[in-house]
Amino acid sequence: MSDHGGHSIDDGSRPSDDGEQLAAGDSPWQRLERRVAYENPWLTVWHDEVIRPDGAPGIYGVVHFANRAIGVLAIDERDRVLLVGQHRYPLDAYSWEIPEGGGGPNESEIDAARRELAEETGYRAATWRELGRAALSNSVTDELAVFFVATDLEGGAASPEGTEELQARWVAFDEALAMTLDGRISDALTMLAVQREALDRRR
Amino acid sequence: MSDHGGHSIDDGSRPSDDGEQLAAGDSPWQRLERRVAYENPWLTVWHDEVIRPDGAPGIYGVVHFANRAIGVLAIDERDRVLLVGQHRYPLDAYSWEIPEGGGGPNESEIDAARRELAEETGYRAATWRELGRAALSNSVTDELAVFFVATDLEGGAASPEGTEELQARWVAFDEALAMTLDGRISDALTMLAVQREALDRRR
Repeated sequence: MSDHGGHSIDDGSRPSDDGEQLAAGDSPWQRLERRVAYENPWLTVWHDEVIRPDGAPGIYGVVHFANRAIGVLAIDERDRVLLVGQHRYPLDAYSWEIPEGGGGPNESEIDAARRELAEETGYRAATWRELGRAALSNSVTDELAVFFVATDLEGGAASPEGTEELQARWVAFDEALAMTLDGRISDALTMLAVQREALDRRR
Repeated sequence: MSDHGGHSIDDGSRPSDDGEQLAAGDSPWQRLERRVAYENPWLTVWHDEVIRPDGAPGIYGVVHFANRAIGVLAIDERDRVLLVGQHRYPLDAYSWEIPEGGGGPNESEIDAARRELAEETGYRAATWRELGRAALSNSVTDELAVFFVATDLEGGAASPEGTEELQARWVAFDEALAMTLDGRISDALTMLAVQREALDRRR
């Protein structure tokens, strides 16, 4: 299992595409048994009996997400960002974020992004660009996030879900960035989207 | 429940500290009942019966993390970043990341950061600075991440856990940043730490 010698600090002389080559390798984990420990429409929790990388028996609890996390950084012609505020039940805390929602397996990511923006804020955008993607919490979950920039916006009527009690407001882009840097915004997907846009502007 | 009128788009004239004021408000969610649906040493899954913000009955599955996610951006005197590669079981994929691990409730975040860096890579750092914090996946989990920059490094012997089969390598900071931008690095915590450092350098 530990047949590449466990642990070695590279001296930096290797080519930088090591990651891709190693990605093709086999998993050092072996799954013996999987049972569904919990299930609801949004997530499934698997309890796996495994052989760990060191060869010892172990367990792994995996939280599988039914949907992709979709985030929309909507920017208007005055360079303002559309933020929505809501009480996040798992944290029991109010959170300002870009419009976000779940994209189902039978819906393209961009369609999910258009739908979430329209449902949560009423806005539609003529121009869309994918900004990035991320695995949000890969030690326990398989949740993948995809985030877009939406511009050329046109307003309309929002139709939030019954689980959403949202407020929305426009914030100058630089202020939204500042909010991700000083802790006023703590949502990882919002931080990733706003900071990625900021980095792209500085390159 | 929806007594502040549901949904309103602000015209931008409000002060930017609305978020803090609203954060003090009550939750629009009401918990009727909570049961433990699954538990292991790292996480607890709660199944809650709730009244949703729109007043309708509903359910909420919450994944509670026993530990904080701690990430360490270790940078040497040649401006290289220490990355560790490992197979991430929930994604069944190889992932290059900054050293990360769980900080327990009886351990300070900075102590956890020192311990994880030493365990995974053997390195110790004389200088530490908190870079940021984030809620990684707040629609389902309460997982909080804290990430640090560690400099003035000194090498030593690594002692990874049996669940960790790690490789480590040094990557130029600009290359690590490029990896977070082009998808070679997909771990959100690593992206947040590297991109935050990049933004701080550009300010």
